[in-house]
Amino acid sequence: MTKFWSSMAKRAEPYVPGLQLNEPDMIKLNTNENPYAPSPKVWEAIQTEAAPNLRLYPSPTGDEFRSTIASRYGLSADEVFIGNGSDEVLAFSFMAFFEPGKPIRYPSITYSFYPVYATLFDIPFEEVPVHKDFSVPVEAFYHSAGGVILPNPNAPTSLYLELEQIEAIVEKNPHQVVIIDEAYIDFATESATTLIHKYDNLLVIQTTSKSRSLAGLRVGYALGSKSLINALIRMKDSFNSYTIDRLALAGAQAAFEDEAYFIEVTEKIIATRENAIAKMNALNFHVLPSKANFIFVSHPDFKADFLYTALRKVGILTRHFKQDLIHNYLRITVGTEEDMDQLIEKLQHIMKLDDLM
Amino acid sequence: MTKFWSSMAKRAEPYVPGLQLNEPDMIKLNTNENPYAPSPKVWEAIQTEAAPNLRLYPSPTGDEFRSTIASRYGLSADEVFIGNGSDEVLAFSFMAFFEPGKPIRYPSITYSFYPVYATLFDIPFEEVPVHKDFSVPVEAFYHSAGGVILPNPNAPTSLYLELEQIEAIVEKNPHQVVIIDEAYIDFATESATTLIHKYDNLLVIQTTSKSRSLAGLRVGYALGSKSLINALIRMKDSFNSYTIDRLALAGAQAAFEDEAYFIEVTEKIIATRENAIAKMNALNFHVLPSKANFIFVSHPDFKADFLYTALRKVGILTRHFKQDLIHNYLRITVGTEEDMDQLIEKLQHIMKLDDLM
Repeated sequence: MTKFWSSMAKRAEPYVPGLQLNEPDMIKLNTNENPYAPSPKVWEAIQTEAAPNLRLYPSPTGDEFRSTIASRYGLSADEVFIGNGSDEVLAFSFMAFFEPGKPIRYPSITYSFYPVYATLFDIPFEEVPVHKDFSVPVEAFYHSAGGVILPNPNAPTSLYLELEQIEAIVEKNPHQVVIIDEAYIDFATESATTLIHKYDNLLVIQTTSKSRSLAGLRVGYALGSKSLINALIRMKDSFNSYTIDRLALAGAQAAFEDEAYFIEVTEKIIATRENAIAKMNALNFHVLPSKANFIFVSHPDFKADFLYTALRKVGILTRHFKQDLIHNYLRITVGTEEDMDQLIEKLQHIMKLDDLM
Repeated sequence: MTKFWSSMAKRAEPYVPGLQLNEPDMIKLNTNENPYAPSPKVWEAIQTEAAPNLRLYPSPTGDEFRSTIASRYGLSADEVFIGNGSDEVLAFSFMAFFEPGKPIRYPSITYSFYPVYATLFDIPFEEVPVHKDFSVPVEAFYHSAGGVILPNPNAPTSLYLELEQIEAIVEKNPHQVVIIDEAYIDFATESATTLIHKYDNLLVIQTTSKSRSLAGLRVGYALGSKSLINALIRMKDSFNSYTIDRLALAGAQAAFEDEAYFIEVTEKIIATRENAIAKMNALNFHVLPSKANFIFVSHPDFKADFLYTALRKVGILTRHFKQDLIHNYLRITVGTEEDMDQLIEKLQHIMKLDDLM
């Protein structure tokens, strides 16, 4: 079956995304989507753009959208790279900045796509063990041989590193690129984007899939020095000239232009998260101090895989990772207040039923 | 400026796409887009899909769309791979089937993205010289060491190889993958897809950007044996889980479901092409026998770069390649009948003006 496969195809160990089920009554808390629709301006922009222009190629450079993002972060357009979801931006970053023979570092508990990219592109990696409380040992990331990639907040732990800690890692790797994967940063405190003009080795990657409710559109971006952005553009233009389609470009730009809506939704999710954490604590769950739009929880009396299966049976989909250290945790996306009330109610019911059995 | 670049970033020689200008009165005949809008059903599908679902990830596997394509070609869904434009499908194919150390072959005059992929992934290549009339020397593609990639019809020449010639190349490379890049096949005669069940080393790549008027949506696909498709899926799932967004999936599927519209538009373009060729011949142009939605032309008395510039000044954008052997040719997309009448009229004017100068 592998007769015609290249060595790259043979060594690949593909990522397995969370289930994308289409069950209408399911409460879907498994892939950290935003429970609220995007800004109504997104749909208006898509309508305007789509009808007359679908037959024409999109802009290969997306300059207008890059300018919009740039001004949001006090940067210039040539300090912004845009891609088909932050996963694609990450893939181009592994190609552009990491090297066979030079080991990169990331935390032992983190986004499971990093080893997939590293294996694909034959880049050696060191998985830095996290502490027992899942916190990241900052100093262990100093002086890497090949570069660092670190999500902040981390996934699936939801834990956040303070800006000073991020800065220390960037500063202590002056000859390597440090990638801060900020997919969830809008639900936390401070982004590392403020450090970009200070450190030319810092690349910050963000996405419109979470805080801007656009998981369905596939738009991510990277912020960094012109030299880093140039390298990413070279990768993209050696791979696929038009990575973001017309509708996605128009929609994502409209989402950035509606800052008020973005703030409203983000604040609502943060408030729901804090409520949910309090209620989960009341059910005797151990909940990590989340700065993301998901919580990472375990229970002293109920195994995570039991809870996962029981919740799924009653129509609530969460995410369970069969991995050492975290196999007794569930990652639960913060949905609407009503979603979380349903979750709590179902959990109460499940845990009582289990008592009776 | 390249301090942090990987060896891959340094060796890359990016592709330069055709100009995507946004000048409303420009007749755009430079990037082989379809002059007609896609089926009205495309826009209906996008509307239905977009409004309620943008916040949710698309299907990572696109099974429904794969089934739709499969049934169009008498294949099964696991013989179909879908990607973000045929350029992305080509990139994954280079990763999955070609190998550093084993030279691949493609024609010396062809789609200029092939050497870009090969350089990026460090795959050696042999550019097989085309004949003086730009036709492809079929036997020179037999017994390649590392694989073959061949567009049919070829670009920018517009020349078509008969199915028997394609089959001979596939047959004479039993241990290598032969990729037939059929971006323009719907304007020609026979697709190589009918050979897929006979040869497990054949991969056919097509796009919705040309005959289905969806250049703005970025959807391409590959058809081949399950083993080849599996390798492509492994590459995609090691690179980006969700390469096609919700709107593009819905729109492209709707385009496939409206076969009558597809046939109508394709036949209209073929008729316009034949009319345009006759009129260009009458102006003493040398026009290659096109089986694509573009024509490749030169003139004994007027240099191609002069005509390119003169046409651009009067609002008609064509494509001129500054490359040995073809620098005296223009590639002109087949637009509407009215577009082509405008082209002829402007050319008559330009060629007279030049007479007077």
